[in-house]
Amino acid sequence: MHTDAYEINMMQTYFEKGIQNRRAVFEMFFRKMPFENGYAIFAGLERVINYINNLNFTDDDIEFLRSTGNYSDEFLEYLRNFSFRGNIRSALEGELVFNNEPIMQIEGTVAECQLIETALLNMVNYQTLIATKASRIRMAANYDPLLEFGSRRAQETSAAIWGTRAAYIGGFDSTSNVLAGKKFGIPISGTHAHSLVELYGDDYDAFKAYAETHKECVFLVDTYDTIKSGVPSAIKVANEMGDKIHFAGVRIDSGDMAYLSKRVREMLDNAGYKDAKIIASNDLDEKTITSLKMQDAKIDIWGVGTQVITAFDQPALGAVYKMVSVENNDGKMIDTIKISNNAEKVSTPGKKQVWRITESADGKSEGDYIALSDENPQAQDSIYMFHPQFTYINKTITDFEAKPLLKDIFKNGKLVYKQPKLSEIKQYSASALASLWPEYKRELNPQDYPVDLSQKCWDNKMAIIKKVHKFIQNLDY
Amino acid sequence: MHTDAYEINMMQTYFEKGIQNRRAVFEMFFRKMPFENGYAIFAGLERVINYINNLNFTDDDIEFLRSTGNYSDEFLEYLRNFSFRGNIRSALEGELVFNNEPIMQIEGTVAECQLIETALLNMVNYQTLIATKASRIRMAANYDPLLEFGSRRAQETSAAIWGTRAAYIGGFDSTSNVLAGKKFGIPISGTHAHSLVELYGDDYDAFKAYAETHKECVFLVDTYDTIKSGVPSAIKVANEMGDKIHFAGVRIDSGDMAYLSKRVREMLDNAGYKDAKIIASNDLDEKTITSLKMQDAKIDIWGVGTQVITAFDQPALGAVYKMVSVENNDGKMIDTIKISNNAEKVSTPGKKQVWRITESADGKSEGDYIALSDENPQAQDSIYMFHPQFTYINKTITDFEAKPLLKDIFKNGKLVYKQPKLSEIKQYSASALASLWPEYKRELNPQDYPVDLSQKCWDNKMAIIKKVHKFIQNLDY
Repeated sequence: MHTDAYEINMMQTYFEKGIQNRRAVFEMFFRKMPFENGYAIFAGLERVINYINNLNFTDDDIEFLRSTGNYSDEFLEYLRNFSFRGNIRSALEGELVFNNEPIMQIEGTVAECQLIETALLNMVNYQTLIATKASRIRMAANYDPLLEFGSRRAQETSAAIWGTRAAYIGGFDSTSNVLAGKKFGIPISGTHAHSLVELYGDDYDAFKAYAETHKECVFLVDTYDTIKSGVPSAIKVANEMGDKIHFAGVRIDSGDMAYLSKRVREMLDNAGYKDAKIIASNDLDEKTITSLKMQDAKIDIWGVGTQVITAFDQPALGAVYKMVSVENNDGKMIDTIKISNNAEKVSTPGKKQVWRITESADGKSEGDYIALSDENPQAQDSIYMFHPQFTYINKTITDFEAKPLLKDIFKNGKLVYKQPKLSEIKQYSASALASLWPEYKRELNPQDYPVDLSQKCWDNKMAIIKKVHKFIQNLDY
Repeated sequence: MHTDAYEINMMQTYFEKGIQNRRAVFEMFFRKMPFENGYAIFAGLERVINYINNLNFTDDDIEFLRSTGNYSDEFLEYLRNFSFRGNIRSALEGELVFNNEPIMQIEGTVAECQLIETALLNMVNYQTLIATKASRIRMAANYDPLLEFGSRRAQETSAAIWGTRAAYIGGFDSTSNVLAGKKFGIPISGTHAHSLVELYGDDYDAFKAYAETHKECVFLVDTYDTIKSGVPSAIKVANEMGDKIHFAGVRIDSGDMAYLSKRVREMLDNAGYKDAKIIASNDLDEKTITSLKMQDAKIDIWGVGTQVITAFDQPALGAVYKMVSVENNDGKMIDTIKISNNAEKVSTPGKKQVWRITESADGKSEGDYIALSDENPQAQDSIYMFHPQFTYINKTITDFEAKPLLKDIFKNGKLVYKQPKLSEIKQYSASALASLWPEYKRELNPQDYPVDLSQKCWDNKMAIIKKVHKFIQNLDY
């Protein structure tokens, strides 16, 4: 039921017209790189797998739909017996993906493909967005630990949980969210809030109480005054507790981070706590982290909340789900297109595969090559790659490896793919990034990564556009 | 378990120190108006009520916490028996609320107040944000119907559901999300997507099939060419079907909306369909709607997705949850403060009530008056109101009514408040807006609504700041 009404309305039309079992292929893609980043990190597949495995209509759902008066009894019976029996191919979680290439492909009856559109977009849009945002922050933080603690600012409960998982894939090291820790095995972090200090009325008593009840101690030092009270109190407690605690560091949550962190570093060093870390938080993102690093701020660990969990500067990815091929009256598959007055919104017809082309010599990416599903670049000696809009930008590659991006996940409704562990996904993503030239990875104005169409795919698109134009011209309205 | 790890870590400290049952008062507020709007619309209470009613730790949760090695057996037993037994006071859903005033107040043991912080912020932050964004769009759309269809762009599943509910409170008329329709009784809307047209290969056949299987028809006309194919096909089908359908209108999802809507209006009018509506969608928000209206676009109904469901231009509200009072060693309640280097981040101590002051003569809002909980403005002849930062801005009001904003929701863990129907909440919100001067409601640069402190509340804050400063000065570090 987590779907748009129009999906069910279309299903009713297909059902009443007896064409609900026509085969169709839909593909998901996004048109623009999020945050003008040079790459995106695909995530959301595990959530999609759970969704598909549990997809059905309960009696309660059927009765609700009946109560709207919009649906026939026969159609409602059809829904009651519905389950997904199609194929899903998808990029794997942690994989690098780019705009205007299929990142998921759904093949099945037109009715089942239609129903799952909303949920698939909802899940993949959000997690891919957050994994990508997290990766940008990871780039800025270099090798420093990154803590995700945005649960309170996440857009409702499931974003907190799945968002922190996506952030972990994209490069974060831990989460504050206990449920996400339990569900996914992400390391949990967090010590105390300002309220602990307020309760005790001063830093020293609060830190002492915390230290007497926890081995691992990070003290939040800015409740009243970081320099005059917070840090000296933390040091005093650390001195008194000695080996009974691990004085891991202090957290600063307000004020001028560049100035404060340098002062605090000195204080900790002078007290002999050279290993105690300084953790900063307060609306941080890749820009503020980069800026603080340029100011030589003495921050070791970064706590990021709102900015990563909502992808604050661009809170939606905008992936779409378009029909690219459908069975006609004669049982033949016909490639389909959505034409638009907005040129970049014209879809690319046909069932496709995305091939990641790397140079054999150095293993670095040459670009992605979108071919129709019956093409096999691996069997070719050379690949002619050209820009899909500015076709005069082109190159021919001979010494290459071609790796297909869309992998079989569901076949005839059966799950045929075994998800790796989350830690493996995270690791895979980091290694995929290593194969990308740095020019695609910089935060500002990265080079455009080539996403090209095969000649056959391009010719097919042009022919279909021509056909549609001719059809429209010949209409006798 | 939908909480931050530090809440549980603090609970452990309170428990081990034997002070877990100390009484405390926490208040939730946000510091800045979202979207620089002149008002916000409170939402999220129903979700909070559900959460509190179901709050507990399962055996599974306890075992997970045990596996971290961070918690004592006694503390875990305490959690196993945990339930919320405190008081919650809250603004009601649909109420107008403003920055720097308490919108929710939690009173109970310090442990229980702490645990629920994360979830309460998560729910209220998001829904209040979306209701407010929706209200801005409602202002721009004037009395035109507004359809919410952002599910596919919402930040994960629960945002789609609760976000569309908040949008409904804020002024939207329907949702595309079937589950939200079922769960909350929000009217559902939606007809078909481009894929229906792609399947049939042309507009006419697709519309005809839809019309033969649905009474209520809105045709999406921009799959190939709005003017040459989409609209003429819609008209042809409407002509052929006659009374068998209700030709409600056409939807345009791409292209120049100002131009297209005028052309389409002419075509529909000339064909005799003066009542058929034009529905526009394509990344609309309050700014594009205002602009299209200024261009005299002939759009009757607005479909809004991404922009409302993610609050795209500011995807987080940033409400916080601060301890304002706590029981000390002697069983006395002591007001507490969080001082900050950022002046606007200094909290206001003490348990408070917010009074909405309206002039008796015209029922219009004079501002909100924050008083300590033992004050009663209703018993006063006059109210002296002054700006909490620029105290030389002040006024004295004599002929007024004072209405308390925070209402009892839970008392000693029992729900004592009966939620109105969603339609009543929506209606209440509209009537609350009517009592607000237009100057506070304009989209751009609204007048600041006065949110003032009582003299007693102000004096209390100043005295506590002075006390803390003195304490810090006298520290012997």
